[in-house]
Amino acid sequence: MDTGRVAEGVMKLGVLGTGHVGQTIATALVEKGHEVRLGSRTGDHPDAQAWAEKLGTRASQGTFADAAEFGAIVFHCTPGMYALDVLRPCREALHGKVLVDTSNPLDKSQDFPPTSLFLANTDSVAEQIQRELPEVRVVKALNTVAAPLMVDASRVPDTVVFVAGNDAEAKANVVSLLHKAFGWPRASVLDLGDVTSSRALEMLVMMWIRLYGALGTELFNYRLVRAT
Amino acid sequence: MDTGRVAEGVMKLGVLGTGHVGQTIATALVEKGHEVRLGSRTGDHPDAQAWAEKLGTRASQGTFADAAEFGAIVFHCTPGMYALDVLRPCREALHGKVLVDTSNPLDKSQDFPPTSLFLANTDSVAEQIQRELPEVRVVKALNTVAAPLMVDASRVPDTVVFVAGNDAEAKANVVSLLHKAFGWPRASVLDLGDVTSSRALEMLVMMWIRLYGALGTELFNYRLVRAT
Repeated sequence: MDTGRVAEGVMKLGVLGTGHVGQTIATALVEKGHEVRLGSRTGDHPDAQAWAEKLGTRASQGTFADAAEFGAIVFHCTPGMYALDVLRPCREALHGKVLVDTSNPLDKSQDFPPTSLFLANTDSVAEQIQRELPEVRVVKALNTVAAPLMVDASRVPDTVVFVAGNDAEAKANVVSLLHKAFGWPRASVLDLGDVTSSRALEMLVMMWIRLYGALGTELFNYRLVRAT
Repeated sequence: MDTGRVAEGVMKLGVLGTGHVGQTIATALVEKGHEVRLGSRTGDHPDAQAWAEKLGTRASQGTFADAAEFGAIVFHCTPGMYALDVLRPCREALHGKVLVDTSNPLDKSQDFPPTSLFLANTDSVAEQIQRELPEVRVVKALNTVAAPLMVDASRVPDTVVFVAGNDAEAKANVVSLLHKAFGWPRASVLDLGDVTSSRALEMLVMMWIRLYGALGTELFNYRLVRAT
């Protein structure tokens, strides 16, 4: 079995989605020494090709299924509305693997900022994925912060990010990767529970959008303060 | 017109709901020197009677409509599921007044902790109230923290609470009251926008419930950290 480890501490990782989040995560992982394949719908997306050329020999690109096959751990970085369409063709490639779902249920048919989600409350994108691909170990993570902060915790010290999912070992693997690759202290990654806690994490995006409007920046995060 | 001011800085205030939130808010307001009427469905709720006896001459109790009539500003502190039933009989008494809605859309038919809300995403309790009582100036506030913190900001320094609503003057009045009565620095009260931003604030209760589970305490709040 290919464990995805290509050298001490170095992993083969897949990133699905060539947008801002996908490219930011893929770039940060390459810069940490990992081998990364960036996946797009067509497998020859110009942005993905330009990214791979720029990032050098550890970077490659292909279809979503190519990237899913390549990675020992795979990041889902397309909008939540497209998650199932993107992931269904990756079913075989993702079998038994950890899938980090960074998406949010923003309704792309609405103007920005949206005033509602396409999915909320009684379901979540992460749960949809877990139901559709039961043999994949889905871990919701990183969807509560802007992409530049996902990969650089040092810019928002002592703030919190979250993991949610049904598989404790998968969550531990993700916490370890967030720590080593993106600088999130283990104590800053809070395990919220099983995959249904993704409902809370995904609904938080509406708060994020309102805060973006009120603060005038997307570069913020939450610090949890216990009462004295 | 009765402005509700009975002495310099002292106000007549109404609190609807004799539960934990209502009693905590009503008590804190009396302790700050305000005259407070606590409202219940029946007007002779034993908890309300005990509260009024204990708190002394500035404290009184009656029906929801009595309390609404009494207050220059009125706090809604019953569960979100009951909001419209509680407030419809207060329509005349609340005409033109500021109503601070502290409620959350928790589904009281579920076990605690609930895994979903009775209302979310495309609507909110505050919007329901504003639609049903258009002549009332609804301000969503304080629903994101536990009752002991609502009334004592000093326990969670430099954290944030929110106001949302359609009436800027009403929001300013509420910010002033939160500042003077409960110690919330004006800079700690963030105006999220019109009443539709209550959707984000109310969905945040699911995050609050998950954090309560993960942290083991309800006595926490959020500090917003901007990236360096």
